[in-house]
Amino acid sequence: MLSFTTAGESHGRALVAILEGLPAGMPVDLGQIDEELKRRQWGYGRGGRMKIEKDHVEILSGVRHGLTLGSPIALMIENKDWQNWTEVMAVEPRDIAPEKSRRLKRPRPGHVDLPGGQKYDTRDLRNILERASARETTARVACGALAKQLLVAFGTEIRSHVIQLGGIPDLPLELTWDQVAAIPEDAPLRCADLEIQQRMIDSIDQRREDGDTLGGVFEVVVRGLLPGLGSHTAWDLKLDGRLAQAVMSIPAIKAVAIGAGIEASSLPGSEIHDEIAYNNETKEFIRETNRAGGLEGGVTNGEEVRIRGHMKPLSTLRRPLRSVDIDTKQDEPAGFERSDITAVPAAGVVAESMAALVLGAAMRDKFGGDSLGEMRRNFEGYREQLRGY
Amino acid sequence: MLSFTTAGESHGRALVAILEGLPAGMPVDLGQIDEELKRRQWGYGRGGRMKIEKDHVEILSGVRHGLTLGSPIALMIENKDWQNWTEVMAVEPRDIAPEKSRRLKRPRPGHVDLPGGQKYDTRDLRNILERASARETTARVACGALAKQLLVAFGTEIRSHVIQLGGIPDLPLELTWDQVAAIPEDAPLRCADLEIQQRMIDSIDQRREDGDTLGGVFEVVVRGLLPGLGSHTAWDLKLDGRLAQAVMSIPAIKAVAIGAGIEASSLPGSEIHDEIAYNNETKEFIRETNRAGGLEGGVTNGEEVRIRGHMKPLSTLRRPLRSVDIDTKQDEPAGFERSDITAVPAAGVVAESMAALVLGAAMRDKFGGDSLGEMRRNFEGYREQLRGY
Amino acid sequence: MLSFTTAGESHGRALVAILEGLPAGMPVDLGQIDEELKRRQWGYGRGGRMKIEKDHVEILSGVRHGLTLGSPIALMIENKDWQNWTEVMAVEPRDIAPEKSRRLKRPRPGHVDLPGGQKYDTRDLRNILERASARETTARVACGALAKQLLVAFGTEIRSHVIQLGGIPDLPLELTWDQVAAIPEDAPLRCADLEIQQRMIDSIDQRREDGDTLGGVFEVVVRGLLPGLGSHTAWDLKLDGRLAQAVMSIPAIKAVAIGAGIEASSLPGSEIHDEIAYNNETKEFIRETNRAGGLEGGVTNGEEVRIRGHMKPLSTLRRPLRSVDIDTKQDEPAGFERSDITAVPAAGVVAESMAALVLGAAMRDKFGGDSLGEMRRNFEGYREQLRGY
Amino acid sequence: MLSFTTAGESHGRALVAILEGLPAGMPVDLGQIDEELKRRQWGYGRGGRMKIEKDHVEILSGVRHGLTLGSPIALMIENKDWQNWTEVMAVEPRDIAPEKSRRLKRPRPGHVDLPGGQKYDTRDLRNILERASARETTARVACGALAKQLLVAFGTEIRSHVIQLGGIPDLPLELTWDQVAAIPEDAPLRCADLEIQQRMIDSIDQRREDGDTLGGVFEVVVRGLLPGLGSHTAWDLKLDGRLAQAVMSIPAIKAVAIGAGIEASSLPGSEIHDEIAYNNETKEFIRETNRAGGLEGGVTNGEEVRIRGHMKPLSTLRRPLRSVDIDTKQDEPAGFERSDITAVPAAGVVAESMAALVLGAAMRDKFGGDSLGEMRRNFEGYREQLRGY
Repeated sequence: MLSFTTAGESHGRALVAILEGLPAGMPVDLGQIDEELKRRQWGYGRGGRMKIEKDHVEILSGVRHGLTLGSPIALMIENKDWQNWTEVMAVEPRDIAPEKSRRLKRPRPGHVDLPGGQKYDTRDLRNILERASARETTARVACGALAKQLLVAFGTEIRSHVIQLGGIPDLPLELTWDQVAAIPEDAPLRCADLEIQQRMIDSIDQRREDGDTLGGVFEVVVRGLLPGLGSHTAWDLKLDGRLAQAVMSIPAIKAVAIGAGIEASSLPGSEIHDEIAYNNETKEFIRETNRAGGLEGGVTNGEEVRIRGHMKPLSTLRRPLRSVDIDTKQDEPAGFERSDITAVPAAGVVAESMAALVLGAAMRDKFGGDSLGEMRRNFEGYREQLRGY
Repeated sequence: MLSFTTAGESHGRALVAILEGLPAGMPVDLGQIDEELKRRQWGYGRGGRMKIEKDHVEILSGVRHGLTLGSPIALMIENKDWQNWTEVMAVEPRDIAPEKSRRLKRPRPGHVDLPGGQKYDTRDLRNILERASARETTARVACGALAKQLLVAFGTEIRSHVIQLGGIPDLPLELTWDQVAAIPEDAPLRCADLEIQQRMIDSIDQRREDGDTLGGVFEVVVRGLLPGLGSHTAWDLKLDGRLAQAVMSIPAIKAVAIGAGIEASSLPGSEIHDEIAYNNETKEFIRETNRAGGLEGGVTNGEEVRIRGHMKPLSTLRRPLRSVDIDTKQDEPAGFERSDITAVPAAGVVAESMAALVLGAAMRDKFGGDSLGEMRRNFEGYREQLRGY
Repeated sequence: MLSFTTAGESHGRALVAILEGLPAGMPVDLGQIDEELKRRQWGYGRGGRMKIEKDHVEILSGVRHGLTLGSPIALMIENKDWQNWTEVMAVEPRDIAPEKSRRLKRPRPGHVDLPGGQKYDTRDLRNILERASARETTARVACGALAKQLLVAFGTEIRSHVIQLGGIPDLPLELTWDQVAAIPEDAPLRCADLEIQQRMIDSIDQRREDGDTLGGVFEVVVRGLLPGLGSHTAWDLKLDGRLAQAVMSIPAIKAVAIGAGIEASSLPGSEIHDEIAYNNETKEFIRETNRAGGLEGGVTNGEEVRIRGHMKPLSTLRRPLRSVDIDTKQDEPAGFERSDITAVPAAGVVAESMAALVLGAAMRDKFGGDSLGEMRRNFEGYREQLRGY
Repeated sequence: MLSFTTAGESHGRALVAILEGLPAGMPVDLGQIDEELKRRQWGYGRGGRMKIEKDHVEILSGVRHGLTLGSPIALMIENKDWQNWTEVMAVEPRDIAPEKSRRLKRPRPGHVDLPGGQKYDTRDLRNILERASARETTARVACGALAKQLLVAFGTEIRSHVIQLGGIPDLPLELTWDQVAAIPEDAPLRCADLEIQQRMIDSIDQRREDGDTLGGVFEVVVRGLLPGLGSHTAWDLKLDGRLAQAVMSIPAIKAVAIGAGIEASSLPGSEIHDEIAYNNETKEFIRETNRAGGLEGGVTNGEEVRIRGHMKPLSTLRRPLRSVDIDTKQDEPAGFERSDITAVPAAGVVAESMAALVLGAAMRDKFGGDSLGEMRRNFEGYREQLRGY
């Protein structure tokens, strides 16, 4: 089973992750992990932190001479900003003057500051926000980069793009794989439509002036999966549920849809289901439409898996929202932490990673094997079986 | 930890579930479980099966003299229709004439028939559909009914209602707890607005004539949760992700939103976040709005938890979709199984159950305890702690 | 992943289990499951209950026409004795006269009666003993029988035998597979040495007269496993640990050894390790000894897996031990439930089942596959790979 | 739930662990973790590596100003020896001359070298041994040190001692808590009997001359646990099984016993069970003996938990065992890695850690709570409940 665990505070010394379950003998491209980390930091509307951190992963275990060992892979990404926080975030006991403590006591609406403080019974809400920060997703992206390298070895590719931002355009964009794949890595908002992207940028500029923030919708597209990943036999094996959890767990994501999931609820059955055909040349069952987003009954059907994530506007506003001081119980404006205007493209990259980890796990479950060679042999056997079905 | 496992085919002998992790000494209301099963069967637009099955749960273990023992609870719901399927669904080997075998070989688009058949390498797609059928959710509802009884013991109630069906009304309804709670159990579509409900009914009647199906949107509302359930500290502990998986895993659900999750992605931050206030009388932090749907950073904040599920139109149409015969590879209309026109109200009831199971598990994690008395003592201690925060 | 959950009280209506993760298309021999249940009930020194119950499994789901579906398999074994306990063990609330309630309030030393009562805060210790009874292992054996059928499909067989009982003989027997396999199913104590078996029987007869009980040591032997199951890469993947948990979890087992595990701790390294050789004909690496019990670093090495379980004498004595009345706190003899003099052969059968479930899970993890055919193809590919290593 | 994951190769850059589930607000004593690491390195008969490594833990996350945050704790222990292995163990691709590669191709009997190489399909067995090395237990001990700090906060202490080494004395020592607690930390073999310890030392000296190794038996003793941890209700909740897995998973452990588990199998029931009494002053149920090792039915009964681990002699002998070259298939002596003569005291320290992690998890399950204060309040409530039972 492919699984991962992350650790690390936003201004602590490092983010750490342990990824277990990759087959042995798989080539690891270290530079490509850093590329993914860079993609996560990219995007018009990001704040100052993104300029401080040029994330770089260090692999502490599980890889030798460029190949996985089959043992757990420990990854570490140092927080370059930590040097400014050594006292505030020290592991050891410290006496810090209150004015230097950076204590947070005016919880920010939309963040977990207040319920987290109540739950863990702490009166410095920094103890909550440091872990709740979206910086944690850096560790997910590092793990996801490895999962992607596994998927690529089996012909599967993953992309994401922004299909709506701050309500622009009115309806989310609907684009083909080729259109998505053509988006250059330095596109300011990872949007395929240049004219719309410019309108999004203008909107971000406006919100920046207002001290406000914006959300939006991204789509993850996965191409090249065989039919038969996931299972309908138990509620927690269904891939749609697993993907929904994985994407909803990304900070600020408040809705997840598979394929045309939102629109589908308004249409009659005759207009929404993807009819089945057979391609005599490739010996494959195919669909001419893909409103199901590649999943039927929680199982891949061979079409592109498409997942949409709806992100709320970021909860840290420069023009703060109303809040309460947890000591005095008086109304006070919420505390402020450096933040972005929007981060929808970055959330899409995180969602690619989460999708890669979920789909990689489904591949490991189905094909087993302890080395890449063994897994590939099993995979090829199944592909041949499908041709004869 | 509260967990459950289900088993059972749609036309097999019985559905079975094992629920583990309820505290000992909890009163069990058997009649109320059957009530929930009845609620799941209810709804305008259901087909003939609902008239055959009057589901009744039998508890085979884990409860004695009306109280839980703390040991696993086995639940069984016999399929009354099984008597018509004893040969077709026999456990033992059988030779059945092809014309009586009820073999399915023309997969229904939107169902897992085809990818399931490919995955499990079976040429009778009945081997797939029998487990993939939404009848499996009966077992979930039985488990969920017990989880609800746990929640009620801690002052938490759960309701669901239909807020859009087949695109009616244009925008999903937004209603208060009191409006939702006032919906009578025999409301044909569990919709609080009678005029709109009638329009939904008319639309169902129209689709029935067309041999078509309809989807829609339901909302689950949970009232009376303390702040601090779930955790932001790990991606898989976040309650929003867990609820998203639980609801997305219900057959035909293709999108899940928390609170105003879909709309939120189009609005600026200043308009979407729920500002914080303090009630000096109750010693509680409160919000005057609840667009977050009761969850911030994956943790309950004390407001109502609100989850929306978007259901696609059912995949079995009386006027069948185009498909392929898996033997001949020729185009053929999809097979037909008895089905409904719509089942959105029922899906809402299933989602109540899934939410109750996820939230009950979060309660068990936070409050521990092996008897109801011990759990309650721990709960009350935390409630007192919150008042002093 | 192969996993199972059991439910059921000793005098409740039924024992229930759900087994998940068998591949689809696997033939299921129902009679063979009942055979295993009979083997569990067998053995010289058993009490009256064994005559009442002739256990018979009913499969409620997951199998159709003699083949697994890939969906969860629900198994039920009715407690024939239940008809005598319908009131005492009723699920519904009951008012029962104290003299008919069969309440237990004098906990039996060695059983979980007292710590269970304290934990679950119940004053009728029957609420504990009913689940803690070794009758629960019936459900494990039913699941284990299916796991064995999986293993047999891959050439793996499992046997158990009694190698010491009540200290007879002085040192546990050391026997070959052939000697163990030759033990007839109706051997009174599943012991390969007839003369020693008779001495064991005499000892049981003596203890019966004394109102006392006996323990002993069994060994499980597994033949035909390929090298490479389990993993050294994480503590909880190691098969030795998993097998130890599985066997130690059987009631009354207080020690578990792999191979010559106990003796090994007294010998120097030069005398205990199994040296490696190569068989040029079969292209296999082999060992001429097997003190390691087939596991090195938690991974199978291709030799027989051998696990020993040490069982304490049963805790329910006809001549009761000293205890305390939980109401009066006065010294009183422990309560009495019908029990056996010894059950070591039965514990061996349960341990076979637990081993089959653990090893079956390791097979599923390594070879993956959703149908028996796919799993076999993957298995054969690995076997071929081993030949070329 | 308290859980942990480790990563790291023996000569890689670092060992890493992530520990999840400690309550927030718990004081962390960093020096005490290093003390435990030192205890693990201690012991007469250890080899040269122990002089190279003075292990020191660094906490990378989850602790701030000396208190836990409730978020995952990442721990790192650098391998000081790594500087000598930067090329051989490089993460990045390397071309290394064969004579400098330190490739292992003659598998060592008793190690996982060969089955691991077959499983992961690698021809350099160093890829296996680096992870399989007992050095991995350093990370377990670091996690275990934190679990111990949790237990101490609830009045629970853990010790271990060596009760037999290389067959000396004939029967394992039986000692009281006070005798065990009195063993000084610098006792060469952590044995309470000085005369016997000297005989053990002499035996080690003899084996060193012979190029041989020795095993032995340690006992872990845990004092101060309340009754009611663990559960009899499901096989995988039973603490005896969980402890057995945890201890058996330590390298070279081949047998595990709870209390007098091995001897118990030879004695009649009347002589082995611990009769129950009641102490009117403390309002506690007590036992005058503790042959059960503090566990009945997988649940703590309030007596000391005692676990014995049987360790085989180490598998790396200076006078190598017979093996086979995996390239040539010719008989060759096994490869040699620097190793110890014996490591039983160290294994006892690792077992303390594993026991602390298992028991800490059982405490978290029962008492819940997100802060140390909340957990303590729940704990005290249960203690009061027990007094009234």
